Amino acid sequence: MKPCSPFNHPDRLFSSDPSQRNIARRLYEEVRDLPIVSPHGHTDPSWFALNQNFGNATELFLIPDHYLFRMLYSQGISLPDLGILTRDGSLTETDHRKVWRIFTEYYYLFRGTPSKIWFDHALHEVLGINVPMLLENADQIYDEVNAKLSSEAFRPRALFERFQIEILATTESPLDPLTHHQTIRDSGWQGNVITAFRPDSVVDPEFEGFSENVGKLADITGENTNSWDGYLKALQQRREYFKAMGATSTDHGHPTATTADLSRAECERLLSGGLAGELSAKEADQFRGQMMTETVRMSLDDDLVVQLHPGSFRNHNQPLFERFGRDKGADIPMATDYVNGLRPLLNKFGNEPRLSMILFTLDETSYSRELAPLAGHYPILKLGPAWWFYDSPEGMLRFRRQTNETTGFYNTVGFNDDTRAFMSIPARHDLARRIDCRYLAELVCEHRMSEEEAREVAIDLAYRLVKKAYRFNEEK
Amino acid sequence: MKPCSPFNHPDRLFSSDPSQRNIARRLYEEVRDLPIVSPHGHTDPSWFALNQNFGNATELFLIPDHYLFRMLYSQGISLPDLGILTRDGSLTETDHRKVWRIFTEYYYLFRGTPSKIWFDHALHEVLGINVPMLLENADQIYDEVNAKLSSEAFRPRALFERFQIEILATTESPLDPLTHHQTIRDSGWQGNVITAFRPDSVVDPEFEGFSENVGKLADITGENTNSWDGYLKALQQRREYFKAMGATSTDHGHPTATTADLSRAECERLLSGGLAGELSAKEADQFRGQMMTETVRMSLDDDLVVQLHPGSFRNHNQPLFERFGRDKGADIPMATDYVNGLRPLLNKFGNEPRLSMILFTLDETSYSRELAPLAGHYPILKLGPAWWFYDSPEGMLRFRRQTNETTGFYNTVGFNDDTRAFMSIPARHDLARRIDCRYLAELVCEHRMSEEEAREVAIDLAYRLVKKAYRFNEEK
Amino acid sequence: MKPCSPFNHPDRLFSSDPSQRNIARRLYEEVRDLPIVSPHGHTDPSWFALNQNFGNATELFLIPDHYLFRMLYSQGISLPDLGILTRDGSLTETDHRKVWRIFTEYYYLFRGTPSKIWFDHALHEVLGINVPMLLENADQIYDEVNAKLSSEAFRPRALFERFQIEILATTESPLDPLTHHQTIRDSGWQGNVITAFRPDSVVDPEFEGFSENVGKLADITGENTNSWDGYLKALQQRREYFKAMGATSTDHGHPTATTADLSRAECERLLSGGLAGELSAKEADQFRGQMMTETVRMSLDDDLVVQLHPGSFRNHNQPLFERFGRDKGADIPMATDYVNGLRPLLNKFGNEPRLSMILFTLDETSYSRELAPLAGHYPILKLGPAWWFYDSPEGMLRFRRQTNETTGFYNTVGFNDDTRAFMSIPARHDLARRIDCRYLAELVCEHRMSEEEAREVAIDLAYRLVKKAYRFNEEK
Repeated sequence: MKPCSPFNHPDRLFSSDPSQRNIARRLYEEVRDLPIVSPHGHTDPSWFALNQNFGNATELFLIPDHYLFRMLYSQGISLPDLGILTRDGSLTETDHRKVWRIFTEYYYLFRGTPSKIWFDHALHEVLGINVPMLLENADQIYDEVNAKLSSEAFRPRALFERFQIEILATTESPLDPLTHHQTIRDSGWQGNVITAFRPDSVVDPEFEGFSENVGKLADITGENTNSWDGYLKALQQRREYFKAMGATSTDHGHPTATTADLSRAECERLLSGGLAGELSAKEADQFRGQMMTETVRMSLDDDLVVQLHPGSFRNHNQPLFERFGRDKGADIPMATDYVNGLRPLLNKFGNEPRLSMILFTLDETSYSRELAPLAGHYPILKLGPAWWFYDSPEGMLRFRRQTNETTGFYNTVGFNDDTRAFMSIPARHDLARRIDCRYLAELVCEHRMSEEEAREVAIDLAYRLVKKAYRFNEEK
Repeated sequence: MKPCSPFNHPDRLFSSDPSQRNIARRLYEEVRDLPIVSPHGHTDPSWFALNQNFGNATELFLIPDHYLFRMLYSQGISLPDLGILTRDGSLTETDHRKVWRIFTEYYYLFRGTPSKIWFDHALHEVLGINVPMLLENADQIYDEVNAKLSSEAFRPRALFERFQIEILATTESPLDPLTHHQTIRDSGWQGNVITAFRPDSVVDPEFEGFSENVGKLADITGENTNSWDGYLKALQQRREYFKAMGATSTDHGHPTATTADLSRAECERLLSGGLAGELSAKEADQFRGQMMTETVRMSLDDDLVVQLHPGSFRNHNQPLFERFGRDKGADIPMATDYVNGLRPLLNKFGNEPRLSMILFTLDETSYSRELAPLAGHYPILKLGPAWWFYDSPEGMLRFRRQTNETTGFYNTVGFNDDTRAFMSIPARHDLARRIDCRYLAELVCEHRMSEEEAREVAIDLAYRLVKKAYRFNEEK
Repeated sequence: MKPCSPFNHPDRLFSSDPSQRNIARRLYEEVRDLPIVSPHGHTDPSWFALNQNFGNATELFLIPDHYLFRMLYSQGISLPDLGILTRDGSLTETDHRKVWRIFTEYYYLFRGTPSKIWFDHALHEVLGINVPMLLENADQIYDEVNAKLSSEAFRPRALFERFQIEILATTESPLDPLTHHQTIRDSGWQGNVITAFRPDSVVDPEFEGFSENVGKLADITGENTNSWDGYLKALQQRREYFKAMGATSTDHGHPTATTADLSRAECERLLSGGLAGELSAKEADQFRGQMMTETVRMSLDDDLVVQLHPGSFRNHNQPLFERFGRDKGADIPMATDYVNGLRPLLNKFGNEPRLSMILFTLDETSYSRELAPLAGHYPILKLGPAWWFYDSPEGMLRFRRQTNETTGFYNTVGFNDDTRAFMSIPARHDLARRIDCRYLAELVCEHRMSEEEAREVAIDLAYRLVKKAYRFNEEK
């Protein structure tokens, strides 16, 4: 989708150096209109199953997007004033127009952030609003957006098609019955929405309700999840079901990059301890680490690609978590050790070319020091794109500059939008394509690569690598 | 102060890309002549109290500035040869002209460093020297500088006014009677010189003479500092006095970012142990961490802004420290963990919008990984500017590029010069303004921000944010 | 050697900004043809002793260069298919033409990497091949390269002279009799090939065969290496021999930057434990750390410059190591702590200007945080150039940008090629000279340095600093 409004300049994010900009433009022409392949994200499958209109502007953009409202919160605006619900249902602002005015008034806080780039794209290009996000326009924008959202053309399936999404993966827990995915399949709609297997709730002993969750896993699968064998079989069975619903990957949100290769007796002991709520923090880390290794072992059978997203200190703000729950903008990156953490798994399975494990990081120091050298050696490893806070112009440039010289383009896997903000998907892919073209143009202008090669790489980065890495080309 | 000599190019530090440079020039025009607000530094209040002429060039520039002489020392020139006094008063070079010649001869060592930018600005713009810093000119420069320094126009208050300093904060220990600040207030001079509360000597059990210092605190305040309550009351009393002398902030130079929220019994035990010199390194760290939390708690009452400057391994060079004392260029940055370190304090006070805590770092890896996400969430937190070694063109650009996309401009607090080198203050603020304009010009040229917005941000960064963050706008 | 083929653009690696590029060109003109001084590398002295023709293209370029074949391996190509021998001599591809075709087919994997820059330079400039590295040209290139390699002009000594190498250091173990170096000296050939003293095998208790190696050291020197005194004397004796064979430096490949200053009793205990194979990992680290300090102490007598290359997790891939041995692309960088690690040594010898210790790193976070402040203070310390994975355009730029503002150019030591790939030596030095000129041109264009100064610095970085740092100017 080519932005054409005055709000999103056609040359945005390219270098201002004229020779680089010209080449970036030409490269971008090659990739601009390629379909969107979104192998990892957190959109809600019910949108595509039920195809109901989205709510109002505040409900669509602000309330579910902790990446946006955290910035207002950081400047002293309370979450209830932003319409965020507390756990106990105590008072919060229900006048969403009033919340929208606050958002508009403080929109200047986002200057220079990717949030602004994405939101401007959604507002002006997708929704066609042609006044700027200023307090004086708050009501007009609110009304125009709401009118659009209530129309046929802005229902989820219509947008999916308009966004030229070739494939979109959501993320579900093994406990999820995947009803919405079944509904989508049964509906006859041609949109390709698949699931991904995210077992944190049943493999992380520190996850809320771990023991209950594993109990539910037993109920769903009919396996005895109190035994190590039964527990693994239950997971395998759910993987099979997810695969039948289109999944080609698993995803793991661990606090560390620890992996383990423990004895069977030790595994049994840790499982029992985990279910009894009796593991130390270190033991819980070991158990998760063992489950990473088991996850990879299962891929030998079912070919699911493994994604590891480590390094977030979730819910760092304890009082806020207690009052408002998860996902309130208080997940903070931590230093992450891949070189020691991954070694047990890599020494077991790292040399197996059939396997594929995609690494992400919230610790940019690991790009050049650990991740690029590891992925530049082990057949099993690939690098996911710049993640979360670093899914940004500067973040993406740092990723390329700090990884590419060691690991090359072909140990990376194209772009992930990783978003629950459906409206921002075109903006996010567009941003990634622009930055990759910009980086390639720099290489061309500095005579580090020919323009012909750069054109090929640009298409690889925007389209081909992601399909290959997530096995979307393979027969199902 | 606009440099106009041939030694400091008017376009210096701007990008050489013509489109960026043109915009940077226009933005810089907007901020170049704004008054200097210096909320954190280490100038000597006696200069402004007594208003005596500075000594000779060597005494003014080289001997007190360990950031300068450490570079000569690193190349094998001994400290006594540079006129640096030993603790025991053993022989040192007292012919300051001779020292100046050495400095001039080795001035090429500073090529590409911010020290050179600051010194060139001071020498050529402030002091009006119009020959380059070459050995052949050493004597001429020495004589000309000394002549200037002995004139009326170069006395401290005259320079303060000429530098257009609107407000200047010094830093004092709670044990300091603030006599010089009182003298300034009594003098009728209009220059706004205030103090800041730096309690390291009485809250850090590893500080030289901690126990004696706490004893002095008892003498000054009349409180029983052997009891936890009395100790806290003594600190509160001194804060009140500092506030009456203009202080709006406290400052803390801890080795780590540890904070704590201990039981009363534990606090009492650590205080007793600290006074008896019996704490382990870990206990000392816990005590300092508890005192960070107490400091913030006290701000609930007196509104002082809290500054944390962690991560320096002070006096790394033990034999040099023993012979020459503190501040000899041997303070080395260490890796610093903010995400775990600050959590006890943040979980206690992090959600309180009335409080303000400004974080600095010597570990640039924390910019994007920890500091920007933390300040982009917690209402209490703001980010101080690039500090110490990173108060430089490349350092400041890294700071903006690695923090702004996550935390935005409005969770930062403008510039701190943090210097004891009074002559370099205009140069330091000028450098910061230039680099910010350069960064903004880049955003404008890449269509990430409009020039109108950039103009507003430039003024915020140079003037408005610092006044707001340090509460200089508020009624006293 | 000036590239003139169409494959290596004369402006490559310079900024595309016209003003910067023009200045970079002028600076590069000054250094392009300076002789190569290579103070640290891993070429094989037998090449210059025996002066035999190199083997075929695959044997010369691919099989010995784990930096190249690791990339093919990371994409699933097996090492035996690349002609890499297993330890047990089991089957491997012996048709080197076939291996060459694989290399050519997958050459696109190296896009944007320094490997490609070096290889393109060697292939097109040194070997004069004028078709691109595409599968369709694989056989032609293979044949042409092999023909060249079998000619007189491509024998090692002829290339050494053609490359304008003024001095080349190899690296040998204290157990090496230096026969080849003796042969070179006896031959009357004028090429200046010297050795460097790399004692890892006899000072690292975790090195394969440590105890046996120390036994051999006893045999060679006639000292009783089971006693601490005898062990040190044996090392000193070998250093003397190496020095007689031209060595001006020692080199140390430790996993950490630990140093130690232990009691004599503790040293004796650790030596005994090491020889008995009974040290814990921590004790082994302490022993290596003590040996760093002893190494520096010995330099007080023999003036050898000490190089420390820490931070590599060698042979991270255990199954691969067991099957194929060392140096198979599985050495992964680790986070490295210099500030605490080096302190015992620095507090003992750091203030001694006669000594020189050159630090390298695989942890780029240490550049601005630890290495630049340390080298900007301690007389003994200098910084080696960007090392290993960071010996690349982006890596070298990061090195300068993150170190120069704090430590200056004159605490660095010019370039090290650190290579066993002889054919790539001109390319590597050319790349370093280009990037330094580019960096300097940027400083000039941003008015941070005059062009006249930049010219002087460019020559220092390309030629003078390395000769000074490695004491090649001194009488022998």
